[in-house]
Amino acid sequence: MVGGRSDDGKKMAAPKLSRKKLVELLRSEFPEASHALGRYRIEKVWHGGCRVRLPFHERTLRPGGTIAGPVMMGLADFTMYVAVLSAIGWVPLAVTTNLAINFLKKPAPRDLIAEARLLKLGKRLAVGEVAIRSDGQSDLLAHVTATYSIPAGS
Amino acid sequence: MVGGRSDDGKKMAAPKLSRKKLVELLRSEFPEASHALGRYRIEKVWHGGCRVRLPFHERTLRPGGTIAGPVMMGLADFTMYVAVLSAIGWVPLAVTTNLAINFLKKPAPRDLIAEARLLKLGKRLAVGEVAIRSDGQSDLLAHVTATYSIPAGS
Amino acid sequence: MVGGRSDDGKKMAAPKLSRKKLVELLRSEFPEASHALGRYRIEKVWHGGCRVRLPFHERTLRPGGTIAGPVMMGLADFTMYVAVLSAIGWVPLAVTTNLAINFLKKPAPRDLIAEARLLKLGKRLAVGEVAIRSDGQSDLLAHVTATYSIPAGS
Amino acid sequence: MVGGRSDDGKKMAAPKLSRKKLVELLRSEFPEASHALGRYRIEKVWHGGCRVRLPFHERTLRPGGTIAGPVMMGLADFTMYVAVLSAIGWVPLAVTTNLAINFLKKPAPRDLIAEARLLKLGKRLAVGEVAIRSDGQSDLLAHVTATYSIPAGS
Repeated sequence: MVGGRSDDGKKMAAPKLSRKKLVELLRSEFPEASHALGRYRIEKVWHGGCRVRLPFHERTLRPGGTIAGPVMMGLADFTMYVAVLSAIGWVPLAVTTNLAINFLKKPAPRDLIAEARLLKLGKRLAVGEVAIRSDGQSDLLAHVTATYSIPAGS
Repeated sequence: MVGGRSDDGKKMAAPKLSRKKLVELLRSEFPEASHALGRYRIEKVWHGGCRVRLPFHERTLRPGGTIAGPVMMGLADFTMYVAVLSAIGWVPLAVTTNLAINFLKKPAPRDLIAEARLLKLGKRLAVGEVAIRSDGQSDLLAHVTATYSIPAGS
Repeated sequence: MVGGRSDDGKKMAAPKLSRKKLVELLRSEFPEASHALGRYRIEKVWHGGCRVRLPFHERTLRPGGTIAGPVMMGLADFTMYVAVLSAIGWVPLAVTTNLAINFLKKPAPRDLIAEARLLKLGKRLAVGEVAIRSDGQSDLLAHVTATYSIPAGS
Repeated sequence: MVGGRSDDGKKMAAPKLSRKKLVELLRSEFPEASHALGRYRIEKVWHGGCRVRLPFHERTLRPGGTIAGPVMMGLADFTMYVAVLSAIGWVPLAVTTNLAINFLKKPAPRDLIAEARLLKLGKRLAVGEVAIRSDGQSDLLAHVTATYSIPAGS
């Protein structure tokens, strides 16, 4: 694994971009897009990984009271993006080439917590996984793997 | 294949729910969620497939001028949902269990056109694929496969 | 789409390597590996696509009389490999980076027919889909999407 | 997570089938198929997870000296199957519905070690992930997610 996990007690390497710097850059460079910070809260960043919170909002519900799938897909994609930048620095044009999500459990009406870690960091591709949970709960709601393509010369 | 394709000249079977009926039900039952109609326009529905348009909006752009990935993921998920309902009738609690997307080409700043067709329709699972293109263009922007779980007794 | 389909009546572009040449090269260069021809029969090759047959053999059965999943995964990977070479020429070190398969129907004890076509052919990545059927039947047994990484300078 | 990991020091729950019993059943019931033990060595089984070794063999190489992708796909599928049986007992007709693999690193010519753990164990579906490494090395060679369908009434 490239990245440490936030919860395993291992010492984690410093990210190439601090949490503060990342937040500044995302705010100034992505004013409108889904990769904008929007409602996402970057809670922690380390080399090859990060944790992002999405506060609960009723608008994200679908019938049956569950949080809509695309909300989790967007959160996973953003969290993976931050994990990639934490390892390669500010390369905003890195783009997702592939994302696969398994929905495992109906989410509770609570904040979502996504944690990403890179499984591979190559020159051209970065591959990682993202675990999504309800705040304060250990069961997985969704598991995601994603690949980002890193522009040549980055 | 379960569903015909809208563009192949074959006669397509009638859907279990007409386009008009589907639009009514989605409007009344999903007032706020991502599966709500929102900005989606269901253009055509047949048994096991459908075509959905997402009008272009600047808010969906990310730096570099491309439409954000999660916008396409949400569109694909919705389009697949409509294709499932077209084949099984109004079973709103059908839920996505797995979705995999390959991003193939940078989208132009135009409407997105998504076309879904079911590859399998079982008692418990429906599997389909979704092709996303820019309006009026033949190249694929993204290709999606997704699985929906159908509640028992539906 | 990059490749035409063998069954849609459109004129297909000539492949970069003829079927005959491909078979010769695979035989001489892959004497032992899974990418060797082994029991695979390349039936048709066009630019960006191909059709491959795997003759039925009892050894590939699993309990219940169905053909084992890994047999179909190996067939899909090989078929996609041939489709990539048909479009870029003899670049044997192209490698799979991602493969996703949906198993749709229990195979009959018959030959398997796999048909691949490229969805995207870029400088660094080729993405395609593979449909697997039982010989003489129209239902899909499995649907595969796969990405190959193309070595720089190929 | 349903299953503990073999390497995290947590106490793991007992599997529904012991390693010894599983090996006996697989040997007697799958005499010829890919789910047969074949060259696979089940090294450890716990509730919701297991570790399987595939001894190195030159026949599995492809040009460039790397182990062929389908060898890893077959190993992952088998390992996931054992993990499912460890949690639900002897239900041999459980079948893979979806498998997605990311190839991360060129394998060394050594034994492969696959470790599976379930991410979800439902009544109808079990979802898990498999990590594949070269024996004695920590880097991932491949990461797999897979879904098994559990027959009704099991």
